[in-house]
Amino acid sequence: MRFDSKDQKQDCVFCDVIDQKIPRQVRYEEENLIVFKNTLDWVPLMYIVAPKMHMSQTEFWCSPIFLQASRTAVRLGEEDAPNGFRLVSNFGIDAMQSQPHGHLHLLGGNHLGLYVDFPSKNEFWMNVYGQNPFEIEQFRGSND
Amino acid sequence: MRFDSKDQKQDCVFCDVIDQKIPRQVRYEEENLIVFKNTLDWVPLMYIVAPKMHMSQTEFWCSPIFLQASRTAVRLGEEDAPNGFRLVSNFGIDAMQSQPHGHLHLLGGNHLGLYVDFPSKNEFWMNVYGQNPFEIEQFRGSND
Repeated sequence: MRFDSKDQKQDCVFCDVIDQKIPRQVRYEEENLIVFKNTLDWVPLMYIVAPKMHMSQTEFWCSPIFLQASRTAVRLGEEDAPNGFRLVSNFGIDAMQSQPHGHLHLLGGNHLGLYVDFPSKNEFWMNVYGQNPFEIEQFRGSND
Repeated sequence: MRFDSKDQKQDCVFCDVIDQKIPRQVRYEEENLIVFKNTLDWVPLMYIVAPKMHMSQTEFWCSPIFLQASRTAVRLGEEDAPNGFRLVSNFGIDAMQSQPHGHLHLLGGNHLGLYVDFPSKNEFWMNVYGQNPFEIEQFRGSND
Protein backbone atom coordinates (compact mmCIF):
# COMPACT_ATOMS: atom_id res chain seq x y z
CA MET A 1 0.00 0.00 0.00
CA ARG A 2 1.20 3.50 -0.88
CA PHE A 3 -0.21 6.50 0.96
CA ASP A 4 -0.49 8.66 -2.14
CA SER A 5 -3.29 11.07 -2.83
CA LYS A 6 -2.27 13.04 -5.91
CA ASP A 7 -5.81 13.28 -7.27
CA GLN A 8 -7.57 14.20 -4.05
CA LYS A 9 -7.02 17.96 -3.99
CA GLN A 10 -10.69 18.56 -4.80
CA ASP A 11 -11.90 17.22 -1.46
CA CYS A 12 -8.92 18.34 0.63
CA VAL A 13 -9.69 20.33 3.79
CA PHE A 14 -6.09 21.51 4.12
CA CYS A 15 -6.11 22.82 0.52
CA ASP A 16 -9.24 24.77 1.46
CA VAL A 17 -7.44 26.14 4.54
CA ILE A 18 -4.43 27.12 2.40
CA ASP A 19 -6.71 28.71 -0.23
CA GLN A 20 -8.49 30.64 2.58
CA LYS A 21 -11.83 29.00 1.83
CA ILE A 22 -11.88 27.98 5.51
CA PRO A 23 -10.94 30.38 8.35
CA ARG A 24 -7.49 29.67 9.76
CA GLN A 25 -4.97 31.09 12.20
CA VAL A 26 -1.58 31.24 10.54
CA ARG A 27 1.52 31.03 12.75
CA TYR A 28 4.06 31.15 9.91
CA GLU A 29 4.03 31.28 6.15
CA GLU A 30 6.53 31.29 3.32
CA GLU A 31 6.43 30.58 -0.39
CA ASN A 32 5.89 26.81 -0.27
CA LEU A 33 5.06 26.14 3.37
CA ILE A 34 2.40 27.12 5.91
CA VAL A 35 1.99 26.59 9.66
CA PHE A 36 -1.52 27.05 11.05
CA LYS A 37 -3.35 26.21 14.26
CA ASN A 38 -5.16 22.89 14.41
CA THR A 39 -8.86 23.27 15.30
CA LEU A 40 -8.38 20.53 17.92
CA ASP A 41 -7.53 21.58 21.49
CA TRP A 42 -6.21 18.39 23.02
CA VAL A 43 -3.07 20.16 24.21
CA PRO A 44 -2.35 23.91 24.39
CA LEU A 45 -0.12 24.03 21.30
CA MET A 46 -1.33 22.16 18.21
CA TYR A 47 0.09 23.39 14.90
CA ILE A 48 -0.10 21.83 11.45
CA VAL A 49 3.04 22.23 9.31
CA ALA A 50 2.11 21.59 5.68
CA PRO A 51 3.32 22.19 2.13
CA LYS A 52 1.09 24.60 0.23
CA MET A 53 1.05 22.27 -2.76
CA HIS A 54 -1.21 19.25 -2.37
CA MET A 55 0.84 16.11 -1.85
CA SER A 56 0.54 12.90 0.18
CA GLN A 57 2.36 12.16 3.43
CA THR A 58 4.80 9.97 1.52
CA GLU A 59 5.44 12.66 -1.07
CA PHE A 60 5.88 15.29 1.67
CA TRP A 61 8.32 13.22 3.73
CA CYS A 62 10.36 12.36 0.61
CA SER A 63 10.36 15.85 -0.94
CA PRO A 64 13.20 18.42 -0.60
CA ILE A 65 10.58 20.75 0.96
CA PHE A 66 10.45 18.41 3.95
CA LEU A 67 13.81 19.63 5.23
CA GLN A 68 12.45 23.17 5.12
CA ALA A 69 9.40 21.95 7.05
CA SER A 70 11.45 20.05 9.64
CA ARG A 71 13.68 23.07 10.32
CA THR A 72 10.68 25.39 10.60
CA ALA A 73 8.87 22.97 12.92
CA VAL A 74 11.84 22.74 15.27
CA ARG A 75 12.34 26.52 15.31
CA LEU A 76 8.67 27.17 16.15
CA GLY A 77 8.67 24.38 18.71
CA GLU A 78 11.66 25.88 20.50
CA GLU A 79 10.06 29.33 20.41
CA ASP A 80 6.50 28.42 21.43
CA ALA A 81 7.01 25.30 23.58
CA PRO A 82 10.24 25.87 25.52
CA ASN A 83 9.56 22.93 27.88
CA GLY A 84 9.41 20.47 25.01
CA PHE A 85 7.38 19.50 21.98
CA ARG A 86 6.51 16.53 19.79
CA LEU A 87 6.61 16.23 15.99
CA VAL A 88 4.35 13.53 14.49
CA SER A 89 3.05 12.33 11.15
CA ASN A 90 0.47 9.59 10.76
CA PHE A 91 0.35 7.35 7.68
CA GLY A 92 -2.75 5.29 6.94
CA ILE A 93 -5.49 3.63 8.94
CA ASP A 94 -3.51 2.04 11.78
CA ALA A 95 -2.07 5.48 12.62
CA MET A 96 -5.47 7.23 12.39
CA GLN A 97 -4.39 9.54 9.54
CA SER A 98 -7.45 11.71 8.89
CA GLN A 99 -6.22 14.16 6.23
CA PRO A 100 -4.68 13.10 2.91
CA HIS A 101 -2.65 16.34 2.55
CA GLY A 102 0.86 15.75 3.87
CA HIS A 103 1.52 17.40 7.24
CA LEU A 104 3.47 17.36 10.48
CA HIS A 105 1.78 17.84 13.86
CA LEU A 106 3.67 20.16 16.21
CA LEU A 107 2.43 19.59 19.78
CA GLY A 108 3.33 21.18 23.08
CA GLY A 109 2.29 23.40 25.94
CA ASN A 110 2.09 20.82 28.69
CA HIS A 111 3.03 17.22 29.46
CA LEU A 112 2.14 15.24 26.31
CA GLY A 113 2.14 11.70 27.66
CA LEU A 114 3.06 8.87 25.31
CA TYR A 115 3.02 8.89 21.52
CA VAL A 116 0.99 5.71 21.06
CA ASP A 117 -1.81 3.80 22.80
CA PHE A 118 -1.45 0.17 23.82
CA PRO A 119 -3.30 -2.16 26.19
CA SER A 120 -0.60 -2.23 28.90
CA LYS A 121 -0.16 1.56 28.97
CA ASN A 122 -1.56 1.86 32.48
CA GLU A 123 1.16 -0.51 33.69
CA PHE A 124 3.73 1.84 32.20
CA TRP A 125 2.28 4.80 34.11
CA MET A 126 2.07 2.78 37.31
CA ASN A 127 5.78 1.99 37.01
CA VAL A 128 6.71 5.62 36.35
CA TYR A 129 4.39 7.59 38.63
CA GLY A 130 2.37 5.11 40.65
CA GLN A 131 -0.73 6.21 38.74
CA ASN A 132 -1.76 7.57 35.36
CA PRO A 133 -1.01 11.32 35.48
CA PHE A 134 -3.86 11.99 33.07
CA GLU A 135 -6.43 10.59 35.49
CA ILE A 136 -5.56 12.68 38.55
CA GLU A 137 -6.98 16.07 39.44
CA GLN A 138 -3.77 17.96 40.13
CA PHE A 139 -2.54 17.05 36.67
CA ARG A 140 -5.67 18.30 34.96
CA GLY A 141 -4.84 21.67 36.46
CA SER A 142 -1.84 22.03 34.16
CA ASN A 143 -4.23 22.35 31.23
CA ASP A 144 -5.85 25.50 32.64
CA MET B 1 15.83 26.25 25.87
CA ARG B 2 17.76 24.43 23.15
CA PHE B 3 17.68 20.65 22.98
CA ASP B 4 21.36 20.26 22.17
CA SER B 5 23.57 17.56 23.52
CA LYS B 6 26.86 17.84 21.64
CA ASP B 7 28.98 16.85 24.59
CA GLN B 8 26.94 13.91 25.81
CA LYS B 9 28.28 11.14 23.56
CA GLN B 10 30.09 9.57 26.50
CA ASP B 11 26.85 8.58 28.26
CA CYS B 12 24.77 7.95 25.16
CA VAL B 13 22.94 4.61 24.96
CA PHE B 14 22.29 4.97 21.23
CA CYS B 15 26.01 5.60 20.58
CA ASP B 16 26.71 2.36 22.46
CA VAL B 17 24.11 0.59 20.28
CA ILE B 18 25.71 2.02 17.13
CA ASP B 19 29.20 1.06 18.35
CA GLN B 20 27.90 -2.48 19.09
CA LYS B 21 28.69 -2.17 22.80
CA ILE B 22 25.04 -3.11 23.38
CA PRO B 23 23.26 -5.94 21.50
CA ARG B 24 20.93 -4.63 18.80
CA GLN B 25 18.76 -5.87 15.95
CA VAL B 26 19.50 -3.85 12.85
CA ARG B 27 16.75 -3.46 10.25
CA TYR B 28 18.73 -1.22 7.88
CA GLU B 29 22.11 0.42 7.78
CA GLU B 30 24.04 2.74 5.50
CA GLU B 31 27.08 4.97 5.86
CA ASN B 32 25.55 7.68 8.09
CA LEU B 33 22.26 6.17 9.21
CA ILE B 34 21.01 3.16 11.16
CA VAL B 35 17.58 1.66 11.83
CA PHE B 36 17.34 -0.75 14.75
CA LYS B 37 14.59 -2.32 16.83
CA ASN B 38 13.54 -0.53 19.97
CA THR B 39 13.76 -2.72 23.07
CA LEU B 40 10.22 -1.60 23.98
CA ASP B 41 7.30 -3.74 22.80
CA TRP B 42 4.34 -1.40 23.16
CA VAL B 43 3.26 -2.08 19.56
CA PRO B 44 4.46 -4.84 17.18
CA LEU B 45 6.72 -2.58 15.10
CA MET B 46 9.01 -0.17 16.98
CA TYR B 47 12.08 0.98 15.09
CA ILE B 48 14.55 3.74 15.91
CA VAL B 49 15.89 5.69 12.91
CA ALA B 50 19.06 7.50 13.96
CA PRO B 51 22.16 9.17 12.56
CA LYS B 52 25.34 7.26 13.37
CA MET B 53 27.06 10.46 14.44
CA HIS B 54 26.00 11.74 17.85
CA MET B 55 23.80 14.79 17.50
CA SER B 56 20.78 16.27 19.30
CA GLN B 57 17.18 16.06 18.09
CA THR B 58 17.43 19.67 16.92
CA GLU B 59 20.66 19.01 15.04
CA PHE B 60 19.20 15.84 13.47
CA TRP B 61 15.97 17.51 12.32
CA CYS B 62 17.92 20.46 10.86
CA SER B 63 20.71 18.43 9.21
CA PRO B 64 20.79 17.39 5.52
CA ILE B 65 20.94 13.78 6.77
CA PHE B 66 17.39 14.18 8.03
CA LEU B 67 15.96 13.98 4.51
CA GLN B 68 17.80 10.68 4.07
CA ALA B 69 16.31 9.52 7.38
CA SER B 70 12.77 10.63 6.49
CA ARG B 71 12.88 8.84 3.12
CA THR B 72 14.26 5.68 4.72
CA ALA B 73 11.65 5.77 7.49
CA VAL B 74 8.79 6.07 5.00
CA ARG B 75 10.16 3.28 2.81
CA LEU B 76 10.52 0.88 5.77
CA GLY B 77 7.12 1.89 7.11
CA GLU B 78 5.46 1.08 3.80
CA GLU B 79 7.32 -2.24 3.62
CA ASP B 80 6.86 -3.43 7.20
CA ALA B 81 3.57 -1.77 8.25
CA PRO B 82 1.33 -1.81 5.16
CA ASN B 83 -1.78 -0.86 7.17
CA GLY B 84 -0.20 2.34 8.40
CA PHE B 85 2.56 3.70 10.59
CA ARG B 86 3.51 6.70 12.69
CA LEU B 87 6.73 8.74 12.69
CA VAL B 88 7.48 10.66 15.90
CA SER B 89 10.25 12.63 17.55
CA ASN B 90 10.10 13.93 21.09
CA PHE B 91 11.95 17.07 22.18
CA GLY B 92 12.47 17.79 25.87
CA ILE B 93 10.68 17.07 29.11
CA ASP B 94 7.05 17.79 28.16
CA ALA B 95 7.37 15.28 25.30
CA MET B 96 9.07 12.63 27.48
CA GLN B 97 12.25 12.56 25.41
CA SER B 98 14.43 9.93 27.08
CA GLN B 99 17.49 9.72 24.79
CA PRO B 100 19.63 12.73 23.87
CA HIS B 101 20.81 11.16 20.57
CA GLY B 102 18.57 12.44 17.74
CA HIS B 103 16.11 9.84 16.46
CA LEU B 104 12.78 9.16 14.82
CA HIS B 105 10.38 6.53 16.16
CA LEU B 106 8.79 4.36 13.45
CA LEU B 107 5.70 2.65 14.89
CA GLY B 108 3.19 0.23 13.40
CA GLY B 109 1.80 -3.28 13.34
CA ASN B 110 -1.64 -2.61 14.78
CA HIS B 111 -3.97 0.26 15.64
CA LEU B 112 -1.77 2.92 17.29
CA GLY B 113 -4.40 5.09 18.97
CA LEU B 114 -3.68 8.77 19.42
CA TYR B 115 -0.30 10.51 19.36
CA VAL B 116 -0.71 12.39 22.64
CA ASP B 117 -2.38 11.97 26.04
CA PHE B 118 -4.83 14.50 27.44
CA PRO B 119 -7.44 14.48 30.21
CA SER B 120 -10.48 14.35 27.90
CA LYS B 121 -9.12 11.51 25.76
CA ASN B 122 -11.77 9.08 26.92
CA GLU B 123 -14.44 11.49 25.64
CA PHE B 124 -12.75 11.36 22.24
CA TRP B 125 -12.90 7.56 22.18
CA MET B 126 -16.51 7.56 23.37
CA ASN B 127 -17.42 9.83 20.45
CA VAL B 128 -15.60 7.66 17.93
CA TYR B 129 -16.27 4.11 19.10
CA GLY B 130 -18.60 4.31 22.09
CA GLN B 131 -15.74 3.06 24.26
CA ASN B 132 -11.95 3.15 24.48
CA PRO B 133 -10.72 0.44 22.07
CA PHE B 134 -7.66 -0.14 24.25
CA GLU B 135 -9.78 -1.19 27.20
CA ILE B 136 -11.83 -3.93 25.51
CA GLU B 137 -10.90 -7.58 25.20
CA GLN B 138 -11.45 -8.09 21.47
CA PHE B 139 -9.03 -5.26 20.78
CA ARG B 140 -6.32 -6.71 22.98
CA GLY B 141 -6.42 -9.75 20.68
CA SER B 142 -4.94 -7.74 17.81
CA ASN B 143 -1.67 -7.56 19.74
CA ASP B 144 -1.24 -11.32 19.70
